[in-house]
Order: sequence, then structure tokens, then C-alpha cells
Amino acid sequence: MTERSSLDQDQFLTVLTREEAVSRFRAALAPKPLGSELVPLDRLVGRVLATDIAAPVDTPPFDRSVVDGFALHAGDVATASDTAPSVLALNGEVIACGFQPKLAVRPGTATPIATGGPVPRGADAVVMIEQTDIAADGRLVVKRALAPGQNIAFAGSDIARGETLLRRGTTVGAREIGMLAAVGLVEAQVWLKPRVAVISTGDELVAPGEPLRPAAIYDSNGAIVAAALEENGCEPVRFGAIADDAVRLEAAMREAHATCDAVILSGGTSKGAGDLTYRIVGALGSPGIVAHGVALKPGKPLCLAVADGKPVVILPGFPTSAMFTFHDIVVPVLRILAGQPERQDVQLTARVPVRVPSDLGRTEFVMVALSASPDGPVAYPIGKGSGSVTAFSQADGFVTIDALAEAMPAETVTPVTLFTPHLHVPDLVIMGSHCVGLDAVIGRLVDHGLSARSLALGSLGGLSALRRGECDLAPIHLFDPKTGLYNRPFLGPDMSLIAGWRRMQGIVHARTDTRFAGITDAKAAVDKALADPDCLMVNRNQGAGTRILIDQLLEGRKPPGYWNQPRSHNAVAASVAQGRADWGVAIRPVAEANDLGFIPLAEEHYDFAVAAEPAKAAAIEAFRAAIVEARDALEALGFAPADREPQT
Amino acid sequence: MTERSSLDQDQFLTVLTREEAVSRFRAALAPKPLGSELVPLDRLVGRVLATDIAAPVDTPPFDRSVVDGFALHAGDVATASDTAPSVLALNGEVIACGFQPKLAVRPGTATPIATGGPVPRGADAVVMIEQTDIAADGRLVVKRALAPGQNIAFAGSDIARGETLLRRGTTVGAREIGMLAAVGLVEAQVWLKPRVAVISTGDELVAPGEPLRPAAIYDSNGAIVAAALEENGCEPVRFGAIADDAVRLEAAMREAHATCDAVILSGGTSKGAGDLTYRIVGALGSPGIVAHGVALKPGKPLCLAVADGKPVVILPGFPTSAMFTFHDIVVPVLRILAGQPERQDVQLTARVPVRVPSDLGRTEFVMVALSASPDGPVAYPIGKGSGSVTAFSQADGFVTIDALAEAMPAETVTPVTLFTPHLHVPDLVIMGSHCVGLDAVIGRLVDHGLSARSLALGSLGGLSALRRGECDLAPIHLFDPKTGLYNRPFLGPDMSLIAGWRRMQGIVHARTDTRFAGITDAKAAVDKALADPDCLMVNRNQGAGTRILIDQLLEGRKPPGYWNQPRSHNAVAASVAQGRADWGVAIRPVAEANDLGFIPLAEEHYDFAVAAEPAKAAAIEAFRAAIVEARDALEALGFAPADREPQT
Repeated sequence: MTERSSLDQDQFLTVLTREEAVSRFRAALAPKPLGSELVPLDRLVGRVLATDIAAPVDTPPFDRSVVDGFALHAGDVATASDTAPSVLALNGEVIACGFQPKLAVRPGTATPIATGGPVPRGADAVVMIEQTDIAADGRLVVKRALAPGQNIAFAGSDIARGETLLRRGTTVGAREIGMLAAVGLVEAQVWLKPRVAVISTGDELVAPGEPLRPAAIYDSNGAIVAAALEENGCEPVRFGAIADDAVRLEAAMREAHATCDAVILSGGTSKGAGDLTYRIVGALGSPGIVAHGVALKPGKPLCLAVADGKPVVILPGFPTSAMFTFHDIVVPVLRILAGQPERQDVQLTARVPVRVPSDLGRTEFVMVALSASPDGPVAYPIGKGSGSVTAFSQADGFVTIDALAEAMPAETVTPVTLFTPHLHVPDLVIMGSHCVGLDAVIGRLVDHGLSARSLALGSLGGLSALRRGECDLAPIHLFDPKTGLYNRPFLGPDMSLIAGWRRMQGIVHARTDTRFAGITDAKAAVDKALADPDCLMVNRNQGAGTRILIDQLLEGRKPPGYWNQPRSHNAVAASVAQGRADWGVAIRPVAEANDLGFIPLAEEHYDFAVAAEPAKAAAIEAFRAAIVEARDALEALGFAPADREPQT
Repeated sequence: MTERSSLDQDQFLTVLTREEAVSRFRAALAPKPLGSELVPLDRLVGRVLATDIAAPVDTPPFDRSVVDGFALHAGDVATASDTAPSVLALNGEVIACGFQPKLAVRPGTATPIATGGPVPRGADAVVMIEQTDIAADGRLVVKRALAPGQNIAFAGSDIARGETLLRRGTTVGAREIGMLAAVGLVEAQVWLKPRVAVISTGDELVAPGEPLRPAAIYDSNGAIVAAALEENGCEPVRFGAIADDAVRLEAAMREAHATCDAVILSGGTSKGAGDLTYRIVGALGSPGIVAHGVALKPGKPLCLAVADGKPVVILPGFPTSAMFTFHDIVVPVLRILAGQPERQDVQLTARVPVRVPSDLGRTEFVMVALSASPDGPVAYPIGKGSGSVTAFSQADGFVTIDALAEAMPAETVTPVTLFTPHLHVPDLVIMGSHCVGLDAVIGRLVDHGLSARSLALGSLGGLSALRRGECDLAPIHLFDPKTGLYNRPFLGPDMSLIAGWRRMQGIVHARTDTRFAGITDAKAAVDKALADPDCLMVNRNQGAGTRILIDQLLEGRKPPGYWNQPRSHNAVAASVAQGRADWGVAIRPVAEANDLGFIPLAEEHYDFAVAAEPAKAAAIEAFRAAIVEARDALEALGFAPADREPQT
């Protein structure tokens, strides 16, 4: 592992505006489709036609009947009606599909013909079988007048030989496949798929499926970039995750550059990760790096290069940064290489109910989840940061904050660019405190045919959203020290409470930590911990229900670690399990999952605030039923039913 | 070839409403996903998760720094500023990504840390490197106050171990791939893709790529259905096109039913094609046919069956009928088998400027092309009939006419269901008479980066649309016998004319037809033809420029075949080439393509009417330039430039 200091790195190169970076990249690359290949019909879906395609035959190839009936002269039945039918002699052949007529239809005669059959010589119309009878003498009785040409599809009326059937630049789908087949074509010339090398760099990366070392993370960018390449008409070539080793990395990048049409590297763009990758990219070919540092958030450390006519891009290592810059700046160029039409984004307008701070001087993309409100769509920022990969799936799209703005004020109405053209608004929107037990309940809800989305805004955030009508349920666990009651004292006048479950909280510590050996009382444990100045605590954030418990325990004392204030039970448990702290307060299931010692403290109430007269009464009832149905699953997770006596 | 009469077929079974047919089909099938399989990450895109997926690890797995900087105690720098910085001792390690810290950060000290590096024990914040300096004595100078937790992403803050990462029913895309990879997962349980047999039946069918026999057509339904199955999460199993042979067809269908999860047959539903397929389907398994004949247009002959728990569907043979019924009734059921989410159609509202007649008692789908007008979107019906395959590609979507309506009145404002969620409005909309030369000009336009759509409405239809502002260009070839002039006399007051090209028209006849041997004068040829009562003509439709020429030639005479009035030069040429008629009038390039004799008659003018002050002046100029650039291509097609002396 190469160990490098964040102190001895070069500063970023000049940071460019998004527009200037894009303009330099395109000017250096002059992107155009790479070439074309002939591909058979059954592998054409999703490909883009490289040439216009003319119909080699008329379609239909002959005048054909569009009904089951009789081919005849329209003039013979010009006055026919139910009361005064025309009578015609039948010719001695039957024209089925695929049958080539041998006999001409002379005036006064008719020939039976099936839908799709070729109209015989002489006939200029076809009468439907429903408008005829067969007389006792075997002759045909026609009871309806016909216009010339009636019920005939003339040769070439769909498409004539030589006409352009499909135009270059068309993306082939089922419809285009059908058109090619209908004129007998079995292959088409389509643009080549660019082969794009995907490399992840970083000493910290572990391939998914491998065990996670301490301080290591899974390489997710490689997989995301590869899948996004497929979605944009390119063929990903995976080079895997490579440690920050100059020799190995340079060898991989040289091979990638030599064998592929483009190279996408992720990681290694921020100063701490070193300038190794830049040096290699700069030396791959001319003109080299054209932009390094772009005024985008997330995505500032993006690096764009062109090496001997091929794009080479270093994406930021953090997934959200990598994806925004990849889609915003790299994908449009790759689509040109692939001959793919420009991607068309779908937008809608929504209200952002909260203030979103932004960095002056950087175009900022903020992921949002959409919800309905009485005043139209509401977009909630998902503040998970650029390291998040789950934010992408909870988000419906993003809003853009101009580089010249310091913030987006609360209640701004702004366009939202959707990640997918179809917006699926869930049946129930749940905003408030999150609990792993809630996942189990939502799972039961799915069995009821309902969908739900849960956004973690904290208990108080959920209550505010519920008051504004922006969510249907607000999960809360708020302790009122005055009354000694959970949750109920916090409800607004038009709200009621659905009972959820109980979560046992307690002191967590390493099982091997002898300082806590044999202690079963939480207060005693805290006293023991505070007696040792080397014993570090991990606290919880202000406003968390658990924080109230901790403050009661500490009675005003602020031991070492007090200011380490993560926002979740899991973060507390991870901190203790990984030795960054020695004790904290978390719920029992999390302690058990991390194999930590647990000293019970108090049982908190996790309930759901809901409008007293909810708009979606049936879905709320289904949710109430789902809590009951999830009882076993909740108990398996370590949660107690709301109707059970408190445990200690 | 089995020859069957359209006379001795059973009538349709009771025709059901669309709703009743769907209800019976679903009741008999009770569709649900077929089962699930474990699929690796790199083949997951487009698949649908069969189970909820919980995160097996915290993400991030440890508290990590989100900036390059120094891990420290926030309390140590609580009052730091540019003018009164805090000074800290540096600890003797540097935390790069992937590096597991060994030293705790004690009060008064700081440890260099890279973006993504694990926060060491003791530290509760990270200061950005830009907000620090290194003093001459090597100590760290911090110029900014920090809050506890600042620049730290706590363990599990993205997703906590045990939380539901992805929910069952989710379609996997790049985002989901990234989430799975980020928690180290390399595979997921997804719903099985139903294997669906695709069989085409009909004596008239020829596989694409094979030469076309007389009276035969290419099998396009097989390819369209296969591609549409892929687009809807199924795996098509092609059985090819099978002639109407009871033994072969039954063997194929039994094999398809035994080896696949569903069977889609196309063709063989109309009475003319026989009830062979019904008998086989009825005997495949129970309960058998549940609907045969649905009140849909196109698509009435649709047949729905369930055989021993598997859906068996006979689609109508005509492509448009097959596709509408397939997408409307069959696809939703197949998507359930595939575990795919319900398809979401995108609709917009448009005005239909013309009256659309409809059959009372049948829900009718009418394909439309969209155009912009000063009053909003306009939807033009594409009246190509259910045999058309090209209509699908010219159409943007369809309008639905209620079963209880006899027609949709002109100027109706109605929802249009789009075929694809993205509507691409072309730069130029061209409505009027079509010419293969126009394809060549549009090809040049594409080189200018412009797109165009051409709709064949006839010369007069194009002029009406232009007057209403619904198109940008109207190609016309209208001869005014009074003035002897083409086109100009037909222009409205606010229109001007762009010169197009000249098309030589003449008498076409079989080269082997001795009656026309040696004749070079069109009038003489007509006199010769009319002298023989067995010599059949093929006329053109009323309103065609060519029809005016023909009527002048005939001088009031109506020879045999006069009432055979197709709408295009190609149909006339095909009729003569295939022996359904002996002579007609068509343009020279079409005569040559069909290897017919050609006796020149007159040169018609194909020009473009345009608004005198067009809204899209630049695009119109590009079109004018494209005509000039296409000069060679037009001459190669047999058309003369507008500025050349008339030829004979």
C-alpha cells in the first residue's frame, strides 16, 4: 500500500466552469460515431441505424383483400341492397392466403377470397362474406353496393419499393424489427458499440463478494459505470479495482487505452488520493488533460482528457459525484461515439419546502424525493452526501442550483429532472425516524399490493411534514420528560397515533472490555466508564430520543468522546465495534448484530403519527394491519409489541 | 398447400367486449410470477428483484472523512479564525484511503487524513486542508472553527446493516447495481424470465431473407412479437413460420406448449385462414379457449386460451392488429408472469383535425402522428389499415374511440397514448404527396442536423394542413387544365412555392406484351389497348395528378379496368408486372424498377408549397439547399431538375 500525505499534493488545477470544461473536452475530441457493422435482425434491438434503409419490395407486394369475401367488379353490384341484391356466378377457384389466382374475374362473376389473398385480374373490389348469401342454385347473392377499390389494400400502399423505410439514427425497437422483417430484410448496418474500459483505483477498494478488510470499502463505481455504459449503448470492458500502485495502474491504463475506444477511471481524483492517475493520464497521448477541476457539486475533482483521439476520464471516487459528472458530462459524448440519439431528460415542476444551502461559484445538483401535497408535487432534498449510493435509489431526480446562488430558499418552485421518465408515486409516503422494523412492516404492505417510501427526516421533521400534508405517516420516538410519556404529547391537534413497537436501549461495549465485566446496571456502567479518563464514549445527535436518555445518565458530565455525535444506532455500534469509542447507547438488535455487550437501560416507544382524518384511509388501515402481521418479524429483530409489558 | 374455402368456415364465436375478454383470460390463468433464480451482478440489468434485499454491512462501514484534511477534536478549534488560529501538534501517521489508523487523536493533536479515510479514535471532526497551514515548527495551524461531526460521514449513515436496501419488484438498473456492489453483493434473486414460444402460421408466409414467391408475404409478426417480448422481460423462443398443415402445426404447438411458459401464435385467426389453429389450441389443455372474437378494432379476431395453466394466444395475422391486441391484452399478463411492474403509458392531449369514422360496438385504436400547431399539438390519423407495418413507425401513438361512438368528430381534443415516453417533434413536418425523391432530400437534411417527418395526405390534404399551420411544407403536383400550369394556381394567398423536380409519366406495360411493341406515342398506345376488349387497364384515384392525364388520354372512354383505382405509381406498376392489368400510367423510375415497358406521356412538376413567411425560416432554407444538394441523387432516381427543359 502506498502511503502518501495529503500535505504534499499539488493543489487542483484551475477550476473551470461546467460549460468551459465541456467545451474544451469536445473541442479536443471532436466526437463522432466510430464506425458501423452489419448485425442480424435478432440482435438489433437497441442498436442505432448507421444508414437509411430503403424498402427493397412493395409492401404489400400485391393488391390484397383485407376481408374474407368475394372479389368482383364493383360496377356489377353498384345498386345491390338487401331488397334488391345482385347475383353473380362463382368462379372455379378459391383464393386462400399464399394462393396465386389463375382465373380472371370477368363481369358478372366473383371469386371467393380470404383476408390477405391476392386480388385476381379483373376484380376491382371485394365484398365481405357477411354481406352475401349463397343461393340455392349455387350463385352468389350480394346485398351491399361497393365502391371501386373497397376492401383492397393496393400493392405498395404500406410502403413502396425504393421508399425510405427507416432513417439513419433510428434506435431499433420491436416496431423497427417488424418493418425490416416485413420487407424481407434480415440484417442492418448499425453504429459500432464503443468498447469502454472501466477501471477503479484506490487502496481502499475491495471487489464485491470478497470479505471487507478494516478501513476498506466495496468498489461500487466499477459496477455502476459498467451498467450505465450498457444503458447508453456502450460495451463496458471491466479492468477491476487496482490499488494505487504506479506500475500496475500505468500498465492497466496503457492496455485499456490501447484496446478500448474510451477509458473511464474512477477514484484517485481528490488530492488525498494522489496525482498518480493524472501523471499517467497526462502521458497516455496528446493533447492529454483538458480539464481538471470543474465548478460542479458534487463532482468538483472531475478530470477530462483526450489521448490520441480517445476520451480518458477520471471520475471522482465518491459514487454520487461519480454518477452526476458521468451522466452530465461524459455520457453525452459517449452517446455521440455510439451514434445514440441525445438523451432526453424528463422534467416536472415541484416545490422545495426547505432551504438548501449551496456553494457559491459551483453548479450544484441536489437529489430529491418527490411527494404529493395539496398544492402539487413537493421535492425533498436527500441529504446523504456525495459518498452515498442509496440516495440514488431513494431519489426520483434532482434539482439544480445555479453557480451564482448561495442557497435555494425554502418554498422555491423549481424544475426537477427525473432519473426515469416514469414517476411512480408510492401509495404511502412515510417521513420521520427510521427503524429497521419499519422495513419489515413495509414488506407486509407490499403483500397488500401497496407501495411505500420511507424518508429519514427524524421524528420532528416527520411531524412537520405531516402537518403540511406532505406525508401520510410520521414514525416518531419522542420522550417527554415532563409527563414521562412517549410521542403522544408531541401530536398536533389534528393527529392521532398508531401504536408501533418498543425498542430496548442500553449501553453497548466490546465484549472483551473488562471494565464492563459483570455490570448489569446502566447507571453503574456509566459511573465505571467515567472513572477511566482513557474510556471514550460515543454520543448521539441533539434531538434524538436516545440523546435524552444519555443526558439523563450523564447528569451534566461531558466525558471524552461526548462531542462525537453520530445520528444512528448503527453508527454508535460500529464506532464501538471498531475501537473508535468504548461505549455508547444503542438498541439491542444493533448491539447483537455487531456482537457487542449490552446493558439494558430503557424501552422506547416507536409509534406512528397520522392525520386524524387521513386522505388515504384504506392504505393507512392496511398499514395498521401490516404492523400486526409483522409481529413475528419484529420480534425476530428484537422489538417488542406495543401491548406487551415493558422488559428490562 | 391446404386449400380451404372462406364459405365453409364457422362463424366467429360470440364477440366479447374488451373488458369481458380480459376478465375471462385472467380468471382462467390467475397469472403470477413463475419463480426466481440467482443471477450475478453483471447480468442483472433489466431484471426484477424477487425478494427484499437487506444490507449485510453498514455503508460506509466506518466513520470516514469526506474531505482531505486533518482529524481533530472540534473542541480544540472552537474559537479558531483567520486572525486567531488554533495550533495543534501533528500525530505521526497519515490516514490514506484503506489505511487503518493506529494512533488515537488526543486533545491538542491532529492526524492528516484523506477523503474516504477512516476517522481515528478520539477525533470528532475533520478540518479541510484549505482551512489550514503548516507552521515553521511543523505544527498545524487551523483557521476555522468546526462543529462536532463536521466533514465526517458516520458508519451506516448511507445505509445501516439490516436495513432494506432494495425492495422486491424493483427493476434493476445502473443505480441498483451500484447499491448492491456497495454492500458487497455479487448476485441477487430475480424473477424468472418466462420462455414464450413465437409461432407464425400461414401458407403465404416466407421467412425474411428468402426470395418472395408470388402471392406470398414476409413473416414480420414473428420478429415483432419476439422483439416486443424481449422489451417486456420475456425470452422469446422462435418456432418460425409454419404452413397451414394440421400435422406440422399441431406438432409445433404441442412442443411449444410442453417446453415453454406461454405460446403466442400469429395468423390463422380470420375465418378465411381456417379454424385449424382453434381446434389445436382447444385441445392443448384445459380450460382451452376463453375468448374468441373481441370487440376491438383493429384486433377483432383475437383468440385467448389457457391450457393447463399456460396462456396460449392467437394474434390476428395483420401486423397492426397483432401488435395492438398483443400490447393491450397479452403484454400485461406476460409482465405479471415475468414479475415486471405494470407498464406505464405516457399520454398527452391533442386535437384531431379530421373526422375519424369508427365501427359502432368496437373499441377502436387509431394510430396518429403528432405535429405542432399554433393552438397546440395536432394528431393526424395514419390511415394505413391493419395490414400496415410502416404505420407503426410513422405514428407517435394512438387515440382510442369508444365502442359506443360511430365516429370521432373533426376537431376533437382527446388523449394520445404515446408509443415511447419521449416525443421527438421533428424540425420540419412535411404533409402532402409523397415521392421517393423526397426521401433523398430528407436524407441531405439529416446531414444539416435537421430531422423531418413526411406524412402522405395527398396534394390537397397537404395544402389544407399548410393553411391551418399544421405542417411546414406541402409537396404537391397539381395540374390546372385551364391555365396549363402546375401547382402555382393552387397556392393560397399567404403561400409561396419552392421548386422541386420533374417526374416523367408514361404508359407502362409488360415488355413481353406484343400489343405495345414498337409504339412510342402514348395516344397511339391507348388507342391500341382500347381496341382489344381483353386488354385491362389500371387507373389512378380521383384527385391524383396522374388521373387528370389519364382522363385526358381516354377522352371519356371507360375501358375494362377503369374502376381499378389504386393510389400510387407503385401499385399501378405492380398490377401490370403481376398480370392483374395490362397497362396504366406511372412515373419512369417505377416502371424501370419493375422492368416494365415505358411510353413517355408528360412531365409533371413536383414542388413544395410553403408559408410566404414561414415560422421556421432557417429550416426551410436548409430544405431548399438540400434539394440542390440532392440533385445527383434525384437524377439517379430518374427525376429531372426543375430548371431543365422538359424531356419527352
